[in-house]
Amino acid sequence: KNFKICVIKGDGIGVEVVNETLRMLKAYEKILKSVNFEFIEAKAGLTEFFNNKDAIPNETIETAKKCDAILFGAITSPKPTEIGEELNKLYKSPILTLRKELDLYSNVRPTIDYNSNIDFVIVRENTEGLYIKEEYYDEENEFAIAKRKISKKGSERIVRFAFDYAISNNRKKVSCIHKSNVLRVTDGLFLKTFEKIAKDEKYRNIIHNDYLVDATAMYIIKSPEMFDVMVTTNLFGDILSDEASALGGGLGLAPSANIGDNYALFEPVHGSAPDIAGQGIANPMATMLCCAMMLDYLKIDSKPIKNAVKRAFLEGNTTADLGGSLNTKEVTDKIIEYLTLE
Amino acid sequence: KNFKICVIKGDGIGVEVVNETLRMLKAYEKILKSVNFEFIEAKAGLTEFFNNKDAIPNETIETAKKCDAILFGAITSPKPTEIGEELNKLYKSPILTLRKELDLYSNVRPTIDYNSNIDFVIVRENTEGLYIKEEYYDEENEFAIAKRKISKKGSERIVRFAFDYAISNNRKKVSCIHKSNVLRVTDGLFLKTFEKIAKDEKYRNIIHNDYLVDATAMYIIKSPEMFDVMVTTNLFGDILSDEASALGGGLGLAPSANIGDNYALFEPVHGSAPDIAGQGIANPMATMLCCAMMLDYLKIDSKPIKNAVKRAFLEGNTTADLGGSLNTKEVTDKIIEYLTLE
Ligand SMILES: CC(C)[C@H](C(=O)O)[C@@H](O)C(=O)O
Ligand SMILES: CC(C)[C@H](C(=O)O)[C@@H](O)C(=O)O
Repeated sequence: KNFKICVIKGDGIGVEVVNETLRMLKAYEKILKSVNFEFIEAKAGLTEFFNNKDAIPNETIETAKKCDAILFGAITSPKPTEIGEELNKLYKSPILTLRKELDLYSNVRPTIDYNSNIDFVIVRENTEGLYIKEEYYDEENEFAIAKRKISKKGSERIVRFAFDYAISNNRKKVSCIHKSNVLRVTDGLFLKTFEKIAKDEKYRNIIHNDYLVDATAMYIIKSPEMFDVMVTTNLFGDILSDEASALGGGLGLAPSANIGDNYALFEPVHGSAPDIAGQGIANPMATMLCCAMMLDYLKIDSKPIKNAVKRAFLEGNTTADLGGSLNTKEVTDKIIEYLTLE
Repeated sequence: KNFKICVIKGDGIGVEVVNETLRMLKAYEKILKSVNFEFIEAKAGLTEFFNNKDAIPNETIETAKKCDAILFGAITSPKPTEIGEELNKLYKSPILTLRKELDLYSNVRPTIDYNSNIDFVIVRENTEGLYIKEEYYDEENEFAIAKRKISKKGSERIVRFAFDYAISNNRKKVSCIHKSNVLRVTDGLFLKTFEKIAKDEKYRNIIHNDYLVDATAMYIIKSPEMFDVMVTTNLFGDILSDEASALGGGLGLAPSANIGDNYALFEPVHGSAPDIAGQGIANPMATMLCCAMMLDYLKIDSKPIKNAVKRAFLEGNTTADLGGSLNTKEVTDKIIEYLTLE
């Protein structure tokens, strides 16, 4: 079978980790035999932005739509205080644009910790909340307003996604994370929707409960075993998933999937890390775990990749961020070496 | 000297921890000799709400305004999905109402960890952001909107507060925590204001930098020593301070001060804990540390209280949440026993 993979490397270490992941995937393709991956590159990022005032050309979105899945590296976003007002207005975040244009409403972020029993997944709503880009500055009164939107339909589909995910991944519990004691209307709607859907006959074997987002930020450290699947709104999911990544191997082991009804994009949670870019020392594991999630989505066996990454980790064949002394290429070589069908 | 303290015990364990803190403060008063505390009780909370449909009577706000400081326990807020729509519309959070009515714009939350070197303070803007209560539901289109407001004046005063706090508490660095890569206008304004004020000649000896809120949630776990004073918007401060409390003794040791230009209110970060209320086993230490912050504010020596709490902690004279086996009264007895002027 032939799969078209849209590859968006982006900026900084995004390029490096994606390149090595593709090399690993090509090696895996040989082992699998029956499968063929075609990589179609598309552009996005800061270089694009400075060259063409467009961080994500339309062509990239069109290419993405024609592929079976998208593998995304990382993008450097310019600070609003670093670029002028005019450029600031023109800037569109590539990842946010892709999430919106491809309606990738679910962001799935597993917490991977090979050293402990911590094992939960954050399902983050990916298209609304504070990410709708409705913001303005009132010159006269000198204040800025951003709108946070929670829709009934948007809440329903992400909550259903979380429960369906729990069922198909053999998980037992879904927790709704919200701030409905303050955001009584918006998060009130999110929580109400959650409680309604939780009662669905289909989900009768899944336990459900809810926690406030502030308490959750504490529990993630104090008692992570409380959690199994969490479902939450966009920005809370952003914050909590970065926090959760620190329990495991840190961002170096944190993959994510952005999934919609028609498309899916896979990206490491980490950024483009300009400070270490170009040195060949970035950790490619998160992107390889993204690649494994992509294979799951394409219904291709991903276990050999997951096992190979885990083995490299446990044997200390890692980059410096995980305590090892290998570079990006060397880690990849090890993982390729460990790839075998069971 | 005579000080009037407005005491709002609230619900659940709020009542218990405040009672014991007042007992401790009376004992300290005897040691101090020259100072007299007068406690003036005022009502707020869920019982009030169910009795009079008003969780915070006007009288309470008036009483608070007449006092030199306010000591606040904890409130049980009803879930929007538990009470009917009508009650939901009537509900006003006591603590949010007090922050707003008394214009308590700075929320200061130190991270207290007696076992390690973690020692940073979160300065949270306390009156705007997503807490302005501008929310509505669009029936026809079935979505809810909340507004997040960041004003120039509000940003300026909290940033100045953070830098002034750094100077008077001998701290070296102030970090601005934001999400300006997504909230380019609102957090763009917050960050711009921060960068402008950081350049003030007065603050030339204070280092400054900024981090994204999601990355910060991770760094708090991975490298807490990075932080000294953080300044951030309302909801980010809410989430990050609960997270940070987990590094130390947890919520059982987390105090907070809500400070404005004319009034100040001190409350533990923890809630009313309905699950353990009435059993006399709640940890009073956070409220006692609040009491110490209150004395700092009133320019009364607070060290004896801070030292006594620390000693009780280090000697294992704690409640169950901190691994000890004492109840609320017994912990208080120990702390009273340890109170001495140097
Ligand atoms: C880069 C940024 C826009 C993005 C987000 O906030 O969603 C990132 O932090 C993430 O978590 O994917
Ligand atoms: C009780 C709630 C309204 C409050 C808040 O969100 O500010 C609390 O979590 C806090 O941190 O003081």
